[in-house]
Amino acid sequence: MLPQSITDHLINIVGANNALTSTADLYTHGFDASIHHHTPDIILRPRTAQEIQKIVTLANKQKIPLVPRGAGTALSGQAVPLHAGIVLDITRMDTIKTIRIPDLYCIVEPGVIYGTLNQQLAKHNFFFPPTPGSGDICTIGGMVAINASGMRAIKYGATRDYVLGMDVILPNGDFAQLGTKTLKNSSGYQLERLMVGSEGTLGVITEVTLRISPLPQKRTVALASYTNLEKAGEGVSSIIAQGVIPSALEIMDSVCIKAVNKAMKLDLPDAAALLLIEADGATATEDIQHIAQICKSTGAESITFTDDKKEMQRLWQGRKGVLPSLSRYGDSFVSVSLADDMSVPISRIPQAIVAFQDIAHRHGIIIGTYGHAGDGNLHTKVLLDPNSKSHWRHAEKAVDEIFRTVLKLEGTVSGEHGIGISKAPWMKQERHLALEAMEKIKNALDENNIMNPGKMGQWKGSIISHLRYPWKQKEN
Amino acid sequence: MLPQSITDHLINIVGANNALTSTADLYTHGFDASIHHHTPDIILRPRTAQEIQKIVTLANKQKIPLVPRGAGTALSGQAVPLHAGIVLDITRMDTIKTIRIPDLYCIVEPGVIYGTLNQQLAKHNFFFPPTPGSGDICTIGGMVAINASGMRAIKYGATRDYVLGMDVILPNGDFAQLGTKTLKNSSGYQLERLMVGSEGTLGVITEVTLRISPLPQKRTVALASYTNLEKAGEGVSSIIAQGVIPSALEIMDSVCIKAVNKAMKLDLPDAAALLLIEADGATATEDIQHIAQICKSTGAESITFTDDKKEMQRLWQGRKGVLPSLSRYGDSFVSVSLADDMSVPISRIPQAIVAFQDIAHRHGIIIGTYGHAGDGNLHTKVLLDPNSKSHWRHAEKAVDEIFRTVLKLEGTVSGEHGIGISKAPWMKQERHLALEAMEKIKNALDENNIMNPGKMGQWKGSIISHLRYPWKQKEN
Repeated sequence: MLPQSITDHLINIVGANNALTSTADLYTHGFDASIHHHTPDIILRPRTAQEIQKIVTLANKQKIPLVPRGAGTALSGQAVPLHAGIVLDITRMDTIKTIRIPDLYCIVEPGVIYGTLNQQLAKHNFFFPPTPGSGDICTIGGMVAINASGMRAIKYGATRDYVLGMDVILPNGDFAQLGTKTLKNSSGYQLERLMVGSEGTLGVITEVTLRISPLPQKRTVALASYTNLEKAGEGVSSIIAQGVIPSALEIMDSVCIKAVNKAMKLDLPDAAALLLIEADGATATEDIQHIAQICKSTGAESITFTDDKKEMQRLWQGRKGVLPSLSRYGDSFVSVSLADDMSVPISRIPQAIVAFQDIAHRHGIIIGTYGHAGDGNLHTKVLLDPNSKSHWRHAEKAVDEIFRTVLKLEGTVSGEHGIGISKAPWMKQERHLALEAMEKIKNALDENNIMNPGKMGQWKGSIISHLRYPWKQKEN
Repeated sequence: MLPQSITDHLINIVGANNALTSTADLYTHGFDASIHHHTPDIILRPRTAQEIQKIVTLANKQKIPLVPRGAGTALSGQAVPLHAGIVLDITRMDTIKTIRIPDLYCIVEPGVIYGTLNQQLAKHNFFFPPTPGSGDICTIGGMVAINASGMRAIKYGATRDYVLGMDVILPNGDFAQLGTKTLKNSSGYQLERLMVGSEGTLGVITEVTLRISPLPQKRTVALASYTNLEKAGEGVSSIIAQGVIPSALEIMDSVCIKAVNKAMKLDLPDAAALLLIEADGATATEDIQHIAQICKSTGAESITFTDDKKEMQRLWQGRKGVLPSLSRYGDSFVSVSLADDMSVPISRIPQAIVAFQDIAHRHGIIIGTYGHAGDGNLHTKVLLDPNSKSHWRHAEKAVDEIFRTVLKLEGTVSGEHGIGISKAPWMKQERHLALEAMEKIKNALDENNIMNPGKMGQWKGSIISHLRYPWKQKEN
């Protein structure tokens, strides 16, 4: 609980309409899309960088924890206020300030929705390429904070590759301008790139300058099924080695295929793996034909490809249905984000999937694996009864094994969803030869540790903590 | 001068053959390609990260300045040991450790030559796209330290966009592993991207993991001349706005055209500006035709385009001859790197060039402007008599005006060559709202300020200092 005088001061900065303190509001702003929850003391909805500067300055003086929040779509707990304090909801800062096509950049406030920005850019035949699954609702600020990407990273890279500059309120309340409005920049430390993926622990982003790209003229899609997972992996490797870089190269394992067929009655082939491949650009048709050929030569059983819009939608249906289908796998089960976005070197994908299936089997839990095979980024969903303590315990053990496997395969514990709370222990393992430097930088910029405390390596202990699901303690 | 016991200790680490202390060696290692010079105390040529770790640990304990050095092609004094101490020559660390095509990365030691790496990658039809002018001799370590790029950045980005991970010896002697071997990474602070462009002030890079791209199948080139600079700018803007992103879009102003015609007898059209445009990929021919059309519609006087290799070389000749031609402009003049790689938003290029010409005129000096119009990055060469103090004074004033103009146009003082000493005062102006954060990070990682001291904002006073040219003090 904050002292009333401070609460009053904070409310005064944003106005009473933009400060939320009701029990319901505090409760709902304690969630993001992760398994975690914790209730903040107050929610502030600033409209300007100046208001944010006042809030951060006060928070720093009074040592009040402060968590920036976009749309709350983070999957690992980044927006959960572990130590209460202030949730800074930046969704009112939603102005697209400028789109300068001939200069290949746009400037946006952090609360701009990804989908909205791309609607505006599409009018000029341009786009901001990273394609997060939550693109219709997530904010640019959140994408920058997490270094979000999605299925098109193999061709277009991640958010970090598009951030040219940004305005930030640093943890001490200073206003900083980082980066440039130019495509190139070798002038001083690239702090704008350090901020990308820092999960709100180094400051509050108040404006972002993003590089933009021309929209591809055409898209085509192929669907290839393999009865052998290794062969599917060979398909992926061969496509890349032949220099045909698709705009998306997705994989679904047998658990996901079964789930989709059961829930959506799609009649997908009963395969070990499906590859869904998209090519884009002027040569999309030739490229997808070439890719289909490569799939065939690496042992794909059935291959379909098309440039027809409706048919493309049909082919995508299965891939897009994975997440909802997994959630309906069993009646009392929910699908939770645990070990949900590891990334491995592309050629290691079959090994990783086989290992995950084995781990799931040994721990008696259900794990479906799917994701962005083209860039090595795999998603899993763990299905469990959230009211069962033993389910959580098994899941945590499985997750630990999954992450250890990923690190052995020279992978990373997070490709695009970030660390938050859910991956903190394994990020520390992965980064044990960088943690001290990370801590030094955090301490140098945030002396009082007010910015999203408890995150980015500060979390200690089990991740089965601060759960959004109250355990009923039935030890089944 | 270092105490003999420390010199002995340092020599012992690398072996007598790899420690240089002769007057001649010390003198020659005091240069890079900038206007500056200062003699170090010793040059060490380590072969392994372990040797570097020992050297840095000792340097940190004894507070000895240490400057990492690649091929010495830096244009702003980054490799000049301002405070003497150790020059750490990393050119013996020149092993390409692995090329993993299906995983889209390679791992190299920092002393690998850019051209050598691309020769090896070309065998697989892949390449590392940034294209520095010094690519035949410069090292990957140097490219990472400066965030080098070149003419293909408009399509392919800069070095910063390709660095997936690196090994570093931090200033305190700790070994750190940053980033990943995966294409995506949202796991902890992106310190590998902070290291890019840090000019050897935050540690010594001992290994780099780089993303690689498929080599384009085809290249085509167009040459367009404009009698009106504004129209040439319109041409550039229109090409980009229509979404035809060329692989290079170069500009030369009238001073450069005259210099090339005089020195190389090339008979280039006597124009206000020449655009040299390269398209690559499967649709390179269609693209260059489209681009030629756009040039015509924006008022280009003459346009040539070709996909013939010999003819392409001929068209490139003029652009590639700019630098040597400018150097032969006047007998007692040399071409120096001052204000040599500003970058502005692309549409501001004509304004910038006109302003530079005006500034040169007012200060009675000769400045030729050319560069990467497609990404807003402009190069100038200032021609002066290096023995004339007044020439240097006029040049410094002109440079100050140039940089102030660039900052007014929302540009940056360095697009790809970095800060070193030559741009330090203006980097501080550009980054005045980031300098404190930069300093905090530098102090946090390098308590004793041993890594390349005096650089990255630490330089104070005039840049006409530590000159490689001894003034003869003739005040003409």
